[in-house]
Amino acid sequence: MNVVRVGFIELWVRDLERSLAFYQGLLGFRLERREGGVAYLRGYEELEWSLKLKEAPFPAVRALGFKVASEEDLSALKAFAEERGLPHALESDWGRPRILRLQDPFGYPLAFYFQAEKLPRVLQRYHEHRGPGILRIDHLNVFSPEVAEAVRFYREALAFRLTEYTEDEEGRLWAAWLHRKGNVHDLAFTNGEGPRLHHFAYWLPDALSILRAADILAGAMETDRIERGPGRHGISNAMFLYLKDPDGHRIELYTSDYLTVDPDHPPLRWSLNDPRRQTLWGHRTPKSWFLEGSPFLDLEDRPLPTRASSLEGMPQHVI
Amino acid sequence: MNVVRVGFIELWVRDLERSLAFYQGLLGFRLERREGGVAYLRGYEELEWSLKLKEAPFPAVRALGFKVASEEDLSALKAFAEERGLPHALESDWGRPRILRLQDPFGYPLAFYFQAEKLPRVLQRYHEHRGPGILRIDHLNVFSPEVAEAVRFYREALAFRLTEYTEDEEGRLWAAWLHRKGNVHDLAFTNGEGPRLHHFAYWLPDALSILRAADILAGAMETDRIERGPGRHGISNAMFLYLKDPDGHRIELYTSDYLTVDPDHPPLRWSLNDPRRQTLWGHRTPKSWFLEGSPFLDLEDRPLPTRASSLEGMPQHVI
Amino acid sequence: MNVVRVGFIELWVRDLERSLAFYQGLLGFRLERREGGVAYLRGYEELEWSLKLKEAPFPAVRALGFKVASEEDLSALKAFAEERGLPHALESDWGRPRILRLQDPFGYPLAFYFQAEKLPRVLQRYHEHRGPGILRIDHLNVFSPEVAEAVRFYREALAFRLTEYTEDEEGRLWAAWLHRKGNVHDLAFTNGEGPRLHHFAYWLPDALSILRAADILAGAMETDRIERGPGRHGISNAMFLYLKDPDGHRIELYTSDYLTVDPDHPPLRWSLNDPRRQTLWGHRTPKSWFLEGSPFLDLEDRPLPTRASSLEGMPQHVI
Amino acid sequence: MNVVRVGFIELWVRDLERSLAFYQGLLGFRLERREGGVAYLRGYEELEWSLKLKEAPFPAVRALGFKVASEEDLSALKAFAEERGLPHALESDWGRPRILRLQDPFGYPLAFYFQAEKLPRVLQRYHEHRGPGILRIDHLNVFSPEVAEAVRFYREALAFRLTEYTEDEEGRLWAAWLHRKGNVHDLAFTNGEGPRLHHFAYWLPDALSILRAADILAGAMETDRIERGPGRHGISNAMFLYLKDPDGHRIELYTSDYLTVDPDHPPLRWSLNDPRRQTLWGHRTPKSWFLEGSPFLDLEDRPLPTRASSLEGMPQHVI
Ligand SMILES: [Ca+2]
Ligand SMILES: [Fe+2]
Ligand SMILES: [Fe+2]
Ligand SMILES: [Fe+2]
Ligand SMILES: [Fe+2]
Repeated sequence: MNVVRVGFIELWVRDLERSLAFYQGLLGFRLERREGGVAYLRGYEELEWSLKLKEAPFPAVRALGFKVASEEDLSALKAFAEERGLPHALESDWGRPRILRLQDPFGYPLAFYFQAEKLPRVLQRYHEHRGPGILRIDHLNVFSPEVAEAVRFYREALAFRLTEYTEDEEGRLWAAWLHRKGNVHDLAFTNGEGPRLHHFAYWLPDALSILRAADILAGAMETDRIERGPGRHGISNAMFLYLKDPDGHRIELYTSDYLTVDPDHPPLRWSLNDPRRQTLWGHRTPKSWFLEGSPFLDLEDRPLPTRASSLEGMPQHVI
Repeated sequence: MNVVRVGFIELWVRDLERSLAFYQGLLGFRLERREGGVAYLRGYEELEWSLKLKEAPFPAVRALGFKVASEEDLSALKAFAEERGLPHALESDWGRPRILRLQDPFGYPLAFYFQAEKLPRVLQRYHEHRGPGILRIDHLNVFSPEVAEAVRFYREALAFRLTEYTEDEEGRLWAAWLHRKGNVHDLAFTNGEGPRLHHFAYWLPDALSILRAADILAGAMETDRIERGPGRHGISNAMFLYLKDPDGHRIELYTSDYLTVDPDHPPLRWSLNDPRRQTLWGHRTPKSWFLEGSPFLDLEDRPLPTRASSLEGMPQHVI
Repeated sequence: MNVVRVGFIELWVRDLERSLAFYQGLLGFRLERREGGVAYLRGYEELEWSLKLKEAPFPAVRALGFKVASEEDLSALKAFAEERGLPHALESDWGRPRILRLQDPFGYPLAFYFQAEKLPRVLQRYHEHRGPGILRIDHLNVFSPEVAEAVRFYREALAFRLTEYTEDEEGRLWAAWLHRKGNVHDLAFTNGEGPRLHHFAYWLPDALSILRAADILAGAMETDRIERGPGRHGISNAMFLYLKDPDGHRIELYTSDYLTVDPDHPPLRWSLNDPRRQTLWGHRTPKSWFLEGSPFLDLEDRPLPTRASSLEGMPQHVI
Repeated sequence: MNVVRVGFIELWVRDLERSLAFYQGLLGFRLERREGGVAYLRGYEELEWSLKLKEAPFPAVRALGFKVASEEDLSALKAFAEERGLPHALESDWGRPRILRLQDPFGYPLAFYFQAEKLPRVLQRYHEHRGPGILRIDHLNVFSPEVAEAVRFYREALAFRLTEYTEDEEGRLWAAWLHRKGNVHDLAFTNGEGPRLHHFAYWLPDALSILRAADILAGAMETDRIERGPGRHGISNAMFLYLKDPDGHRIELYTSDYLTVDPDHPPLRWSLNDPRRQTLWGHRTPKSWFLEGSPFLDLEDRPLPTRASSLEGMPQHVI
C-alpha cells in the first residue's frame, strides 16, 4: 500500500465560470479540459491533472486524491478497506481508469489511483505560463477533532512519516505534518471541528512568485481573497500565501520547504504558543484561519457530518 | 536653494553597543567610524555616511539631513533662515566641514550640507556585504499636526515636488509624499501629534532582500522588532518592512517605487479609507504605526515640544 | 535647455506583425495604439508611450527621443539649432503636439518634446501585466567614431553628466555613460563605426525578471534572439540581457543600477581590458556586440552615412 | 539495498586553508569540525555533514557518499560486494560509525552509510547564514567511458531511476540522470575519459541566490573560479552556476528542478546537439566543461587509472 504522494483534489463549486476566473484567470492554472460543469486543471510542472472543479449546488470537497505506486497497491488498499469495513468504491475519471474511493475511519473521502494519462510537458513552455507560476500540488491540510488518532492511523496503516508537530504544554497533539514524497508534507492534520478541509496547497517556484500572486489579486481588486500572508512559516520553513476561492475553499501558495527523505529524519516539535510557529516573523494569524473550512462529501456525495474537538481554544497568537 | 536629496539622519540612542548590534549586526549596515559614543554608518551603495548614532540619555532625533547642490545653496539657505527668522547654526561633522542646522517654521531640525568626504566604493565588494543588503537612505517620514501647511512650505520655499497624497472625503490632507531626487519621496508628512519622526527608510536591492531582513530578525529571535510588513504599499508601490530599533526609532526597508522626474508627473490621490492605500494587498495596519514616533531635538539639543493634530481619528483599516 | 530624461525611440521595422509578436507577445510591452503600419507601446510604469514601431522597407532608427522640462526648453533648443546651424524640424505625433527633431553635430537624430498626453496608470494593474514585466525606458546607447568629442558636446551643450567611462592605457576614451535623470545613464557612447544605434534599454523590476525574459524566449524557441546575458555589468552594476529583435535592433533589459543625483558624484573609470568591466562575473562578450548596430535616418528619413572609428580593435575579453 | 540519496563527498585538497577560504569564506558553507588537516562542512538545511576536505599531496576524490535506509541495507550491500567480488572495506568517520567503502564495477569509489550523528538544526538561524545560502548536497556527476553500462548497473543493481538522458542520432547514450531521492538526480553519468568526477552539486534556495554567488566571487576578484553560468539548464530545468575550487574540483550551485517520485514518471530524451539541452537559453558550453574532471582514488587511496571513451567528439554547441 505504497502511497507515492498527494495527487489531486476535487472541489464542488457553485459557479464554474467564476471559479475558473479565479483559478485559471488570476492564479494561472492551466485548464486542460472542460466539459459540462466540470473542469480539470494542473500546474506547469505536472504531467497529470491535479485540480478538478465541478459545478454543484453547494461548496464541498468530494475527494482527496493520492497517487499510489502501482495497480497492486490499489488492490491492496481495496483489500484493506474490505478487511477494516471502510466504505469504498471504484470509479474512473478523465484519463484515470481506476480510482479507489475510500472513506478512512474518520470520514475523510480519499481517492487512490495509479494509472493516469500523461499530459504534454509544459514546464519549459515559459512563454505560455500565466499568473504567479503554479507548479504542482504539494499538500492537503484537514481539520480533525482527533488529531492524535488520525496521525496514528496514517503512520501505521498508510506509512506516512511525521516531520513536524505542535504540542501544548500537557503534551496534547494539536497539529501534525505527514509526508510520503520527501518534503515536509503530503497531508497535515489541524485540531478543530472535523472532518473538514482546512486547505490544499500548490508549490510555486520561489518567494517572489508568492508576492506576485498577492500583487495580481490586488491588481484585480480581489484583496478580499487574501486571508493570510505572504509570510514565512515557522513550521516547514516555507513561504506561503493563503487565499479563499469564490466558494470559500482555502488554497495555499507554498514554496521552499526542505528535504525529508532520510528514514532517521527527526520530527520537529513546536510549542502551541510559540509566536514563530505559524509565521516565523511573528505575525498573528487571523481567527478565520482556525475556524473556517470546507465540508467533505461522503461516498454517496452527501455532506459529511462533523464533530467538535475536545481540544478547545486556539493559540494565543491570533488577531 | 537646490536640495538634491535626503542625506542622513542623526539619532540619539541609549546604548550604542545595542544599537550597533541591530544596525550593523543584523541589518548589515557598514560601520565606517566609531569614536567615543558616536558611530557613523552607511549602506553599500553610498559614498557618504548616512546614519549617525550617538549615545545619549534618551532616544531622540537630532537632525534630518539633506544634501544640497553646492556651497552657494547653503549660503542661500542661511540667508533664507535669517530673512525668515528661523533658528539656525553652522556646525561641522566627520568629513563634512559645513553643515547648516536650521529649524523650519514647524520645528523640524533640518541639517543641510554639500561637501562630504567620499568613502571608498563598496557596491561591488559583494563578498563583504552582510545582512539583507542595505543600499542607501531613501526618505524621511514625519508626523505633523498641520500637514497641509507643511506641504505648502516645502513645495514653495524648498521646491519639493508632490507625488502622492491622502485625502479624506472632505478634501482634507492627511498625508503627502514629496521628492527632490526623482523617486516617490525624500520627505513625507503624516497627520498626527508632531513634530515627531515617523520613520526613516533605506533602499534595498529587491523584494527578496526585504524578506531576508525578516528572516534574519526571526533567526535572531528579534521578531518583536518587526512592526509591520513585509508587504507592498499601495502608495509608492514599494515593497516595505517596518522595524523598531532598540530605542523605538522606526526604520523602513524599502524598494521598487518608480521614477518621478517629469515636471508634469501627475500627483496620485488616495482616499483615506481605501484598503489598498497602506498595503496594496489589503493588510490592516497596526495602531502603533499611526501613534508612535520619535521626538525631535531643537537646535540646543533639548526635546522639542509637540502639538496634537486637529484631524483626529485614524483610518478604518487598522488592527 | 533642461533635458529631463530619455523619452522614446522610434524604429523602422520590416514586418510590424512580427515585431509586435516579439515586443508585445514575448516581452509583454503594452500596445497602446496601432493604426496602419504604426504601433505605439509602453512599459507598465510609464504614463507616456516610449516605443514607436513603423513598418518600413528596411530597418532603421528614426528618432532618439528626449523629454525636456518645458515648452520653453524646446524653444531654447530650437534657437540653439538655428545658432549652430543644426538641421531641425518641428513635427507632431500621437498625443505629442510639438516635437523638435534635431540632428546633432555628429548626425544623431534627436527628438525633443515636453507635452505628452498621459495614458492611464497601469503599474498596479498587476493582473494585466504580461511577459517579464517591462517597466520603463532607461537609456540609449550609440556607436560613435568620436566618443570623446560627442561626450564633450553632450556635457557642455546639453548638460549631461558623466557617471562611468572606459579608457585604454593611453588615456583614450572608448566609451562613456551620461545621465540626466539620476541613474547611471540616459545616453551612452561606444567606440565604433557610427553614428549607429548600439541598443536601447528598458528597466525591469528585478534580476529575476531578467531571467524570466530569457526563459520566455527559450520557451518560444527564440533563443537566437538572445545575444548576451543574462549577467551583471561591471559598468553600472546593473543586471542585463541583450536581445536582437526580428530586424536586428538590439534591446537591453536592465535593472538595479544606482543613484547618481549628487552634483559631486565622482565618475568611475574602467580600464578597457578589465575582464569585470563588461560582465562583472568575467564573461566574455560576443564579437557581434562590438560590431553590429542599427542605422539611423536623417531628418529626411534617408539612411545616415557612417564613418569608421580611428580607435581600432576591440577589448581582449571577447568570444 | 535501499539507497536514500547522495550523502556526501570527500575531497583531497592541497591547501586546506585555501579551500576553506573558498568553501566557507566565499560560498558560506558551515564549518562544523576541523582537526589536523581535515574539515567537515555542511549546508544550512543539512543535519549531517556532507563535504569532507582533507589536505593531501594532490587533488582527488576519495569517496562518493550515499545514505542508505538502514543498517540492514549496509549489510546487504556488503553481501552484494562479496558476491560480485567488488573491493570493499568498512571504516568509520566523525559521527558515522559504519561506512561501507565499495568500488563499483567501473571503479567509482562509493561510500554507503546509514547512521549519522545529527547536528543542530540551523535552517532557521538566518542571522548566521553567510554567502549565497548553500542548503544541501543535491547530486554527483561523473565522467564515464561506458555510460550505457554504468546506467544499466545503477538501475538494475541499485534501483536508481532514470529521469533524463542524452542520445545522439544513432541512439548512443551520451549522458544520463538517475535519482533515488525524488528530484532529477542523485547521480549523473557523462561520456568522457573516466572514471573521473565531473562535478558535485549543492542546492540553493532560489535563482537569486545563484546570482549572488557570482556576485560574491566577482567581489572577491575570484571570477576565474566561474567556469559556466549562471544559466538555466534545459536538462533538469534547474538554475545553475559551475565553479572550479582552488584544486580544480568543479562544484555546481543548483536549484529549482522538479519532482520525480512517480513510478511512472517518463524519462525525458534530449538530442545531443539540441542547443537548449545544456543551457535552455542557448548559451554555448566551454570546452573545459567537457574535458576537465577530478581523479578518483581507489580503496587504498591510490589514484585510479582512467580509460578513454569510444564515443569521441563533443556536442557542437561549445565555445
Ligand atoms: Ca467562458
Ligand atoms: Fe499548508
Ligand atoms: Fe516610508
Ligand atoms: Fe545599456
Ligand atoms: Fe549537475
